[in-house]
Amino acid sequence: MKIESIDFFYLSMPEVLDIGDGSQDAALVRVRAGGLEGWGECEAAPLPTIAAYVCPMSHSACKPVKASVEGMELNTPGDILKISKKVHENSFDLLQADHTLSGIDIALWDLLGKRLNEPVYKLLGYKKAHSKVPYASQLFGDTAEETYQKAVQARNAGYKAVKFGWGPIGRSTAAVDEAHFRAAREGLGKEHYLMIDIGTCWGEDVTAATARLQALKEINAYWLEEPFANMALDAYSQLAGSKPQVPLAAGEGCNNFVQAAAMIHHAGLRFVQIDTGRIGGITAAKRVAELAVNRGITYVNHTFTSHLALSASLQPYAGLENDIICEYPFEPKQLALDITANQLSINEHGTVHVPDQPGLGLTVDPERIRKYLVNTEIKVNGKILYQTPNLL
Amino acid sequence: MKIESIDFFYLSMPEVLDIGDGSQDAALVRVRAGGLEGWGECEAAPLPTIAAYVCPMSHSACKPVKASVEGMELNTPGDILKISKKVHENSFDLLQADHTLSGIDIALWDLLGKRLNEPVYKLLGYKKAHSKVPYASQLFGDTAEETYQKAVQARNAGYKAVKFGWGPIGRSTAAVDEAHFRAAREGLGKEHYLMIDIGTCWGEDVTAATARLQALKEINAYWLEEPFANMALDAYSQLAGSKPQVPLAAGEGCNNFVQAAAMIHHAGLRFVQIDTGRIGGITAAKRVAELAVNRGITYVNHTFTSHLALSASLQPYAGLENDIICEYPFEPKQLALDITANQLSINEHGTVHVPDQPGLGLTVDPERIRKYLVNTEIKVNGKILYQTPNLL
Repeated sequence: MKIESIDFFYLSMPEVLDIGDGSQDAALVRVRAGGLEGWGECEAAPLPTIAAYVCPMSHSACKPVKASVEGMELNTPGDILKISKKVHENSFDLLQADHTLSGIDIALWDLLGKRLNEPVYKLLGYKKAHSKVPYASQLFGDTAEETYQKAVQARNAGYKAVKFGWGPIGRSTAAVDEAHFRAAREGLGKEHYLMIDIGTCWGEDVTAATARLQALKEINAYWLEEPFANMALDAYSQLAGSKPQVPLAAGEGCNNFVQAAAMIHHAGLRFVQIDTGRIGGITAAKRVAELAVNRGITYVNHTFTSHLALSASLQPYAGLENDIICEYPFEPKQLALDITANQLSINEHGTVHVPDQPGLGLTVDPERIRKYLVNTEIKVNGKILYQTPNLL
Repeated sequence: MKIESIDFFYLSMPEVLDIGDGSQDAALVRVRAGGLEGWGECEAAPLPTIAAYVCPMSHSACKPVKASVEGMELNTPGDILKISKKVHENSFDLLQADHTLSGIDIALWDLLGKRLNEPVYKLLGYKKAHSKVPYASQLFGDTAEETYQKAVQARNAGYKAVKFGWGPIGRSTAAVDEAHFRAAREGLGKEHYLMIDIGTCWGEDVTAATARLQALKEINAYWLEEPFANMALDAYSQLAGSKPQVPLAAGEGCNNFVQAAAMIHHAGLRFVQIDTGRIGGITAAKRVAELAVNRGITYVNHTFTSHLALSASLQPYAGLENDIICEYPFEPKQLALDITANQLSINEHGTVHVPDQPGLGLTVDPERIRKYLVNTEIKVNGKILYQTPNLL
């Protein structure tokens, strides 16, 4: 079948707060072909992401993403790979292109799964999907006391693993950070997995990181996530070689396979975290999962938004039995919950099952998201290049 | 002084062709403060670049670039560093942000130089600017015969060094590529430097590259540029270790310092090529130049557009006496030439002198560029976030 339409929808909460919560807006993509619909989400700033889809060509390697997608054939997984490759060839000088491609690629897999009546993970070559142990992903409290309360709350909600990140961490003294680390462990109890996410606050500052290693060791941090900027290989590998050793996790900022490969090869990571909504979609993420297996590194999804994004992020490593941990949005905004009519709930064993329904196994209900629509129009030389499409 | 305004202008040739010529459009930036103007150019797709400046905030690390620039103080080089750091902290999840920052950073240096009555290279800490030997940067011909003619023409124009790139190379057989390589050398003569630019055509395909090494050696290629995708460290380092050895050059695709550092440390390069219009401006480029010196790698600018971009690209390594080669736009479109009223011409010694006038030493004349203006408007929820500003 031929791709008939690709539509971008910019959704937003009425108010977007200056906090590390990526679920406050969304760039949703709908692809139509053969009487079917596929949906995907870019984990990206909606306006530049849409602009990268529709912008006029600058030169042969700086074309709009649409030049490589519109009217293309979609019958096999190979067709999606072809589109992904074409976008990279035609748009490698358009920086935002990978974020734009991400939602399209996800929607294409969703659509193809529906067409072939298979869940995406089967199209990726996995025979079986292994359930994942979700960790609650949440922000540090403003105070250590608040962090403690949030940890208690997550434990009471039945989570076996909890990650705290962002908020005040890395913005003040080591003592303040350590108080938060200890409060999190205290609230959670000794038995639970506790991960700490720095949100790249330390930039390339290895000294700031090593000053906190002892405390991180003492609270038995399962991993230390994104202490540094994405691709700061030098800082990462220095920290990986420092004592006491705390396992490092990173990769969510990678916007293509070769960046993730660079992190896997040169950053000393124990965990590679991939957001399918940023890395170019499920296609690129699956390649990273294969490389991670080869290098003995654990693959983990990065997901902080909708269950559509969650399902997309689980598919690339659904069949990896040993990579059992998954990030699970613990306190997403209502917008993120409303994107899908159904959710990937946590079952009685405390795990998340990757859907066995065709495609991503989730239903996007236009009526639920209508109220979040941000009406957008881009006009160039009098010609409307983009305006918010009809949801129906 | 306080930054009073930042304005983006989208310029374009009437027709943009599907060729590897980045001079067909431009994203120009004008910064005003203290009664002065500074100008910069983003080497980037204009529309997404502008969108990244004005888009609504998505979350704390995905803010529009303007959030970190508007109203900031500009009195010392340290103030520009502060702005650059702030953009990275506030917008690291906005992929396009580095391209947007690039033109702003360049304009800030230009403005500060005018304010302090110093050329930018002096503000960067260099006592003296060393003239550079320009190489003519041009596209391969459609046929080997055409490539030969272009090489003859460049030699006759007095260039001591010529680079051929893009066009048909890497899109057909090794034999076709080799015919172009040999035609270039034949037309140029034995004494001249000849560089070959693959424009990332081989992706991550080391085999395709090694198949051409013998021919590249035989034509005595001074360097082999961008055989692979930016950041494909594995492919680069494999090729660097292959025989016969041909020096590798790359880096133009890097959009921040840490990526360039990764290429310097792990790609086996002999030359690192930085486009100040992409890497985040002069600030980031200067850091790369310092690292290159430390690692014994030659720094070269990447410039394919205007002389404003050329001056900006020369400043970061103006004071490096041993790094004498510079890319010089050989056949830019008229738009690129019209951006500045004056040009960095090649002197009687066949070299280019970095301007000693304040700032970047070039004058942008609004009247010359008016005809290239692309009227653009971005509207979100009824509010105009961007429209083409007045040129005067």
